[in-house]
Amino acid sequence: MEARDPIGSVGEFALLQQLLPRLPQSDAVVVGPGDDAAVLDLPDRRVVATVDVLVDGVHLRRDWFDGADVGYKAAAVNMSDVAAMGARPLALLVGLVAPADLEVSWLTAFTDGLRDCASAQGCSVVGGDTVHGPVLTVAVTALGTLDGAPVTRAGARPGDVVAVCGRLGWAAAGLAVLRRGFRSPRLLVDAQRRPQPPYEAGPQAAALGATAMIDVSDGLLADAGHVADASGVAIALDATLLPPDPEVESMGRGLGVDPRHWVLAGGEDHALLACFPPDVDLPAPWVRVGSVEAGSGVRVDGIDPSDLPPAGGYEHFGSSRQESSRHESSRHEKRR
Amino acid sequence: MEARDPIGSVGEFALLQQLLPRLPQSDAVVVGPGDDAAVLDLPDRRVVATVDVLVDGVHLRRDWFDGADVGYKAAAVNMSDVAAMGARPLALLVGLVAPADLEVSWLTAFTDGLRDCASAQGCSVVGGDTVHGPVLTVAVTALGTLDGAPVTRAGARPGDVVAVCGRLGWAAAGLAVLRRGFRSPRLLVDAQRRPQPPYEAGPQAAALGATAMIDVSDGLLADAGHVADASGVAIALDATLLPPDPEVESMGRGLGVDPRHWVLAGGEDHALLACFPPDVDLPAPWVRVGSVEAGSGVRVDGIDPSDLPPAGGYEHFGSSRQESSRHESSRHEKRR
Repeated sequence: MEARDPIGSVGEFALLQQLLPRLPQSDAVVVGPGDDAAVLDLPDRRVVATVDVLVDGVHLRRDWFDGADVGYKAAAVNMSDVAAMGARPLALLVGLVAPADLEVSWLTAFTDGLRDCASAQGCSVVGGDTVHGPVLTVAVTALGTLDGAPVTRAGARPGDVVAVCGRLGWAAAGLAVLRRGFRSPRLLVDAQRRPQPPYEAGPQAAALGATAMIDVSDGLLADAGHVADASGVAIALDATLLPPDPEVESMGRGLGVDPRHWVLAGGEDHALLACFPPDVDLPAPWVRVGSVEAGSGVRVDGIDPSDLPPAGGYEHFGSSRQESSRHESSRHEKRR
Repeated sequence: MEARDPIGSVGEFALLQQLLPRLPQSDAVVVGPGDDAAVLDLPDRRVVATVDVLVDGVHLRRDWFDGADVGYKAAAVNMSDVAAMGARPLALLVGLVAPADLEVSWLTAFTDGLRDCASAQGCSVVGGDTVHGPVLTVAVTALGTLDGAPVTRAGARPGDVVAVCGRLGWAAAGLAVLRRGFRSPRLLVDAQRRPQPPYEAGPQAAALGATAMIDVSDGLLADAGHVADASGVAIALDATLLPPDPEVESMGRGLGVDPRHWVLAGGEDHALLACFPPDVDLPAPWVRVGSVEAGSGVRVDGIDPSDLPPAGGYEHFGSSRQESSRHESSRHEKRR
């Protein structure tokens, strides 16, 4: 088998012989890939589980993402959902639809990308199903374990502090760069291709007593709206506490885009947004960005309403996730 | 929202309001659908996990399968993999790629089909991700729980009894009927569209001391080959112990196909094949069909070699699963 052979010409057994040795298994794995199902031995009886689907041409583009990028991103977006429950990711299962003309080297790179992202968090790829089909599609399931109680979107209370951990606007700036046909600056492009969610901040927030948490995949305003809806509260963000990072600021200037739009409405950095009791002593890298109030919806203070991103108008990859989909009711209000 | 509206015209929030109430949650579910991830409380610390992907035009056809059929089958094929470890299915997560022109009624029927298949086994649909894309694709992850030790494919020993529980050849006969443009006999067509794996027989076999087990998805010969390969043994099947059921026999006569080919090489009924110590007292509905020997590969006794299905020649839906993919090395030998 050659790296450039199309996978449709290679037997599955030979392909698995290439792929499975690339996947080290942690001590939690009782039965790994290759049987009817995997078996994990968890630290306790609770398991956290989430699935995300990425489709070529919708959530990624093969001309912008190489195989390793796709694997890396598919792992990251799922492990981030686990972190957003206050949990640690332990295992991934990967459903892959691959066109028969995809090269073997793409698939090995994809597998390496998955593994690199997962194993950096102590997480193993324990199972999968690879089938042929016309459109490259990746469905990753992440399983995780909790130390304490899970943190849902539904527990925020008026008076709580709203805080963020992780990058905002980087992946959106990177997407804008890619859309204009550029491949640099690398820092921003890689933020889009290989998100770096603050995984450890999820369990940290849970231990600090977070009342609600979500991973910022749809954009800060939209995801704050999901928390507001699920908790039955209003969230007031303070734009002065959300200055764009210098890299984002500078790219906005270069491309003629208000970088605050990327910060407020760009998703895919998979930062964590959490609410905490008012007396919490927030450690770095958590940053207070607003507060929870009685009411509903999301309000942004400290910015001229005309400088807000157009409601619902920010386009990004991966904007139609079932688990985070209260779009209609979460549009931020422009303050008059 | 109307049942015939295309899903691309309907907001996600409205869609979820239609779908989530259709999904009852068992006592094992701590956090159900709608958050970043689901949380389950399992009977013990071990979790069994498997994923299968079905693609329109490859593993199913929308003109042959209605929405409820697709949901039902996607649940069944995954829960069967859980059973084949000796485990009971507890929860499903569903990644769905749906073309924007798919009708809302298709999606509600799909959800009902998933639920009906799952809830009959005490299993809940706890999460999902629905995205738009050009090709209907379903990736279901099933999670399950074990009473005893997991039963892998790798423990068969020379001298063991080989036994089967469940239908053989029905789904293949149903596929042959559909391929010829017919929609009846309903029993056979439904066997293809809505497989009825013997889920309870999985934990039963484990309790009886099964040394190896697999679900028959690729065909009896191919899947026996997977067990032989994983266990480092030979499997001798006895064709006289594998008579086609009357429904399969009669359809074979009608279509001019040797029904033994469907029994030996047709997959997708998701029967269970297991190996047991020689002294086991096999209860119904387990049926002894052969024995384990030293050596390698699969041999079929009690049939003229010219009556065997052509090696690798039987076409069926769902023939390229990563977890059960030792095709090259599992071809049965024709006995001389």
